[in-house]
Amino acid sequence: MSELSQRSGVPVPTIKFYLREGLLPPGRAAGATRAHYEDRHLRRLRLIRALADVGGLRLEDVRRVLAAVDDERATLHEVLASAHSRLSSTEAEASEESRTRVARLVRKRRWRVAADSSHALALARALDALDAVGDPLPQEALEGYAQVFADLAVRELASIDVESPEAAAREAVVRTILIEPVLVTLRRLAHEDRSARVFRTRRPARARAGAASAPVPRRSR
Amino acid sequence: MSELSQRSGVPVPTIKFYLREGLLPPGRAAGATRAHYEDRHLRRLRLIRALADVGGLRLEDVRRVLAAVDDERATLHEVLASAHSRLSSTEAEASEESRTRVARLVRKRRWRVAADSSHALALARALDALDAVGDPLPQEALEGYAQVFADLAVRELASIDVESPEAAAREAVVRTILIEPVLVTLRRLAHEDRSARVFRTRRPARARAGAASAPVPRRSR
Repeated sequence: MSELSQRSGVPVPTIKFYLREGLLPPGRAAGATRAHYEDRHLRRLRLIRALADVGGLRLEDVRRVLAAVDDERATLHEVLASAHSRLSSTEAEASEESRTRVARLVRKRRWRVAADSSHALALARALDALDAVGDPLPQEALEGYAQVFADLAVRELASIDVESPEAAAREAVVRTILIEPVLVTLRRLAHEDRSARVFRTRRPARARAGAASAPVPRRSR
Repeated sequence: MSELSQRSGVPVPTIKFYLREGLLPPGRAAGATRAHYEDRHLRRLRLIRALADVGGLRLEDVRRVLAAVDDERATLHEVLASAHSRLSSTEAEASEESRTRVARLVRKRRWRVAADSSHALALARALDALDAVGDPLPQEALEGYAQVFADLAVRELASIDVESPEAAAREAVVRTILIEPVLVTLRRLAHEDRSARVFRTRRPARARAGAASAPVPRRSR
């Protein structure tokens, strides 16, 4: 077990907890205090850690994903979906209007997603947040972004390791979650660059005329 | 002031706080208890709210952005950058290796970004997180994503309202922050669709052979 701990980076007490909870199958007994653990134990440990630590899944949700991994009748998509669908929260509601907009997008793109997809609900909430500050995202802009990510998804999923369902589910969760901050910060960098190019000298005339530092009364003109 | 509160959606006590702090210029006095507020007050209030509520900026950072807005010598890029650069945290460090990778990307793309760009640091940290779980993002993949967001940034910044620096800074912050969850959830939806298409039936043979439900000992074959 100490070797398993070393190779996986998971502390021994945590491994014992997973064994007790039935998340990790027991090793093959080798004497009273020793057991043999194999690659499948390592694969499963890495999946559990990815689900719990990276994906933030609760123990009961980790258990459901492992059940899908172990269900030999489940397709690989069902295994991936069991993990992936729990990454977006379904706790908060979204407006009817935004949910309708998302449904229209999904229909138009002929996306095969669950009728109660947690990602669709999360998207509707994100649209609500833009509405709330008075900057609604036009449907054409939403569709433009959808096109970008549909194109990306083809490349992104092509490189998923399908050697084992554990490894595939782990990779799907890790990449989905941990690449998101990469994309978000790349977009910010690209905006920083673009702003430097486009707005290098531009200062609107009206602003020059109307600007006033905070404590100074408005100039009469 | 109650009309200003109504039009901006900002409560009167909060407006009074902004006036006391010098974030909002005083209205033109109209008698002992009344003052006239104008469109520029409304614009500024909306900017302050966007910076504080959407962007999560601290009061001292809001103040710095407003100073850039009021500085007539500042270019529009300097105004936008004053707000935009504070959206990524600079608190945590990143590894030398990841910072070098980001610097290489910035050089290759000839991106015009600050030498100490907070977004560059945040990107390096995001790369570190992938390294930490043993799934480093290859440099070609990073460059592929960068290309996607460089293309998007051209369209995204073209539609920024440059009527006033307040409005432009507000829009830059609101769109950067509030569109991020839209993009992240669109990507998750696109992955859900793609997985349904690609992995509908595929279940690797090795997995079928090796799979075992958690509490069952390994089958002998």
